[in-house]
Amino acid sequence: MSTPNSLWPRFQKYLTRYPALGFSIDISRMAFEDSLFERLSGGIEKAFADMHALEQGAIANPDEGRMVGHYWLRDASLAPAELQAEITSTLDATLKFAEDIHSGAIRAANGEKFTRVLVVGIGGSALGPQLVAQAITPANPPMAIDFFDNTDPDGMDRTLAQIGSGLATTLTLVISKSGGTKETRNGMLEAEAAYRALGLDFPKHAVAVTGPGSELDRHAIAQGWLARFPMWDWVGGRTSVMSAVGTIAAALQGVDVRGFLAGAAAMDAETRCRPVRENAAMLLALMWYSAGAGRGMKDMVVLPYKDRLVLFSKYLQQLVMESLGKEHDLDGKVVNQGIAVYGNKGSTDQHAYVQQLRDGVNNFFVTFIEVAKARDTAGIEVEPGFTSGDYLQGFLRGTRKALADKGRESITLTIPEVSAFSLGMLVGLFERAVGFYASLVNVNAYHQPGVEAGKKAAGDFLAQMKKVAAALSAQPATAEVLAAAAGVDPEDAWHMLNHLAANGRAQVTHGATAAEDTFSA
Amino acid sequence: MSTPNSLWPRFQKYLTRYPALGFSIDISRMAFEDSLFERLSGGIEKAFADMHALEQGAIANPDEGRMVGHYWLRDASLAPAELQAEITSTLDATLKFAEDIHSGAIRAANGEKFTRVLVVGIGGSALGPQLVAQAITPANPPMAIDFFDNTDPDGMDRTLAQIGSGLATTLTLVISKSGGTKETRNGMLEAEAAYRALGLDFPKHAVAVTGPGSELDRHAIAQGWLARFPMWDWVGGRTSVMSAVGTIAAALQGVDVRGFLAGAAAMDAETRCRPVRENAAMLLALMWYSAGAGRGMKDMVVLPYKDRLVLFSKYLQQLVMESLGKEHDLDGKVVNQGIAVYGNKGSTDQHAYVQQLRDGVNNFFVTFIEVAKARDTAGIEVEPGFTSGDYLQGFLRGTRKALADKGRESITLTIPEVSAFSLGMLVGLFERAVGFYASLVNVNAYHQPGVEAGKKAAGDFLAQMKKVAAALSAQPATAEVLAAAAGVDPEDAWHMLNHLAANGRAQVTHGATAAEDTFSA
Repeated sequence: MSTPNSLWPRFQKYLTRYPALGFSIDISRMAFEDSLFERLSGGIEKAFADMHALEQGAIANPDEGRMVGHYWLRDASLAPAELQAEITSTLDATLKFAEDIHSGAIRAANGEKFTRVLVVGIGGSALGPQLVAQAITPANPPMAIDFFDNTDPDGMDRTLAQIGSGLATTLTLVISKSGGTKETRNGMLEAEAAYRALGLDFPKHAVAVTGPGSELDRHAIAQGWLARFPMWDWVGGRTSVMSAVGTIAAALQGVDVRGFLAGAAAMDAETRCRPVRENAAMLLALMWYSAGAGRGMKDMVVLPYKDRLVLFSKYLQQLVMESLGKEHDLDGKVVNQGIAVYGNKGSTDQHAYVQQLRDGVNNFFVTFIEVAKARDTAGIEVEPGFTSGDYLQGFLRGTRKALADKGRESITLTIPEVSAFSLGMLVGLFERAVGFYASLVNVNAYHQPGVEAGKKAAGDFLAQMKKVAAALSAQPATAEVLAAAAGVDPEDAWHMLNHLAANGRAQVTHGATAAEDTFSA
Repeated sequence: MSTPNSLWPRFQKYLTRYPALGFSIDISRMAFEDSLFERLSGGIEKAFADMHALEQGAIANPDEGRMVGHYWLRDASLAPAELQAEITSTLDATLKFAEDIHSGAIRAANGEKFTRVLVVGIGGSALGPQLVAQAITPANPPMAIDFFDNTDPDGMDRTLAQIGSGLATTLTLVISKSGGTKETRNGMLEAEAAYRALGLDFPKHAVAVTGPGSELDRHAIAQGWLARFPMWDWVGGRTSVMSAVGTIAAALQGVDVRGFLAGAAAMDAETRCRPVRENAAMLLALMWYSAGAGRGMKDMVVLPYKDRLVLFSKYLQQLVMESLGKEHDLDGKVVNQGIAVYGNKGSTDQHAYVQQLRDGVNNFFVTFIEVAKARDTAGIEVEPGFTSGDYLQGFLRGTRKALADKGRESITLTIPEVSAFSLGMLVGLFERAVGFYASLVNVNAYHQPGVEAGKKAAGDFLAQMKKVAAALSAQPATAEVLAAAAGVDPEDAWHMLNHLAANGRAQVTHGATAAEDTFSA
């Protein structure tokens, strides 16, 4: 019955459904050939085997000699026996802690109930909690939440100004796996100073989530913080949202944490054993491979048609790019892998960059995320017979078609609603897809060696800045002169001196060129 | 005095400063050859000439037969004589309106002062106000702001739940240039229903910003809305933040609107007449051209090191991609132009995707935005001699270096602080850079023909859905049968039927395959 150009047969062939989850994946608008599955069968088998070994507790992160255990967080029975009790008891403890905060069994130093949460963390320690806060908390959650996710003093000042006197009933979670992340350390110290300025006792408002024995852990013990929860070395920051990193903030905000974990566990169960043609995680990985020729030649544009999922693209940006963006493969060969990820939400982005997607440079594939249920309330009709949700659906289908008509590829994922369970499904799905793809292109998805270079260069910059500052005197001197005195590169010195001058720690007289600028104490 | 590998000479050569603005652009870490300026001199001259003609009132948007006048919004004296009075009087009127709201001269229907703003708008009608709200409002602005920037009913429900009874003192701005944007029309109707549900009189809380005589304008007149302000056909949505679209919300939130416009005007003045080697807007355009070979082969990653600028990348995503992402050039040739833009903020993103930037696929260039002043308050030291702001500076410099060491290109823009004036400078800078780049690659930066296809496909989908819904009966039938009855494609029918079923307007019994699903009324 299909019209001549109908894709109905192809759609049926490439639609995969998990009825129990209300989930489906549609890859019919990707331009792969049927032979893809055959051609990559060796890699696919290896990816399944690698994932099986990982879930069994193999050292899946060889550089760092670590197991990779985020799948155990939602099903502790799969974890190595010696870890099971700790996973379960930590989860229980985080939920109990949130209960005690809500009930007032644990109170702020002034005797009142805690009303707000301030999360101090960066990267995976912030993105997961931010996604959860945006997507699956009640509209008016039991506790408001704010973040220090940077070392920007102005950003922290602004957040503190917004919290105001509410700081007296604010619980601060300091989250750092290593316990040594400088941005988080700085945020903790800025928070501590803010409590102190209001005459408040920071340790009585502070909770640590960190590796047992870390610098942060020892600090929290020494100061007598309200509580401490463990982060384990077998959970990476970008997959930590189902560890204490994510569960405490989620529980404090009234999220159904066990439902969130159950959603991921259910998706794990579906994608752990199913063969390739029914395996949504493997299909995603294969589509990424097909679109980008296994070399990241196409960007992944993530378009959930649902406001509450607007941060999901940012979450995936970290998960995908930090996991897959690697210089070397597992054999040490230079490969410069990765897949760039961006996106916000539909249909909003149709009024932003979808113009380029349809007409412009064809360097991407889209991942649409459809939410079947439009709203929880009765709602209104905006025209006879049509609702706002009908329009949302119409725009999704219209854009998918308009892109396909121009040879732009897309994947469509469908979830029944935005709930803790369904968000858990999505997180679990993409975690496994990333693992599979990493196997296909033979990279370690679980380390981030490139981040160190920037940190080291930053540390060098600061150490040198101290020398340059010490070289300043009442006598104006150029950057070149001060650089020579401090033994640093003149350009670096110039940046340091301008930074010091802009912040009241040096005087500058601008010349016609950078070399002619002079600086004094 | 420079060390052997120092880039100090190159840095000096390619640093351009506007001392009066505290602004600089550093292109020393881009990999262009000196010959670039010579090689593109013809295109550069043409771009200057095109921009001059545009600013003089030429029909710079030939497809739509329109002038392009966003530069006039901040300096009406440059506009065609017949427009000057209207530009000035509209700006005055928006600021006066905000004053009257603040003073209580204009009050909510219940006699109380307005306390909140709800902006109903999408694309340029939301992104500009959102950027302003994030970047340059006071930490605790005189009025809180929320947005309906989509047709997601759940998103609107959530926002309304958060506003709660505060709706009684909420001023709703409905912003649509054409006055016919469906998402905005839907948002307006949803808002109106919410007011009505609380027994409130919507027109007494409603303000329209739209083209005079548009559908929305006529509706606002008929209902007797509180106020109406004009949008002109010579201002595009993505460059409308300095028209009434942006100025009303900004003024209501306590922003120094005249300072914002003055910043843009000052950057316009610098980049209108300066020769190429001193022209920051032309240098940006040339760097984009150089990095992406004039064909958008490199993504633009935007990294402001300042929390308040986190939305600037999203703002540029629209400005750049909707302006440059074009199928045809001005001669009708298929060119599939564009530059993909993404980014959030530093140093936060160093803990997300900077791993890929340094080590992974080299398909991008970074635009760092440095803010010289760290904070407005005295602040603390996080280590002897070091502040949080020193770390932010160290991470920016460290990442710039780590990327350059691996052959990854970057531009660095510096502004003195985040203020209304400096944000205006940045907006003006990128608007002109986009215009110059469009000339260099010979595309119309001021239309968006590709957006229409998605809208039309959406409209077709909804019209067909009505037929499919009408074909439903008590007797279960497959999508193919119902599609044939309604005369639509079976796959489209299947999506429509599942959407209806998920939202209580059809019954579904899932079969083993999509073709075996049956639907009934």
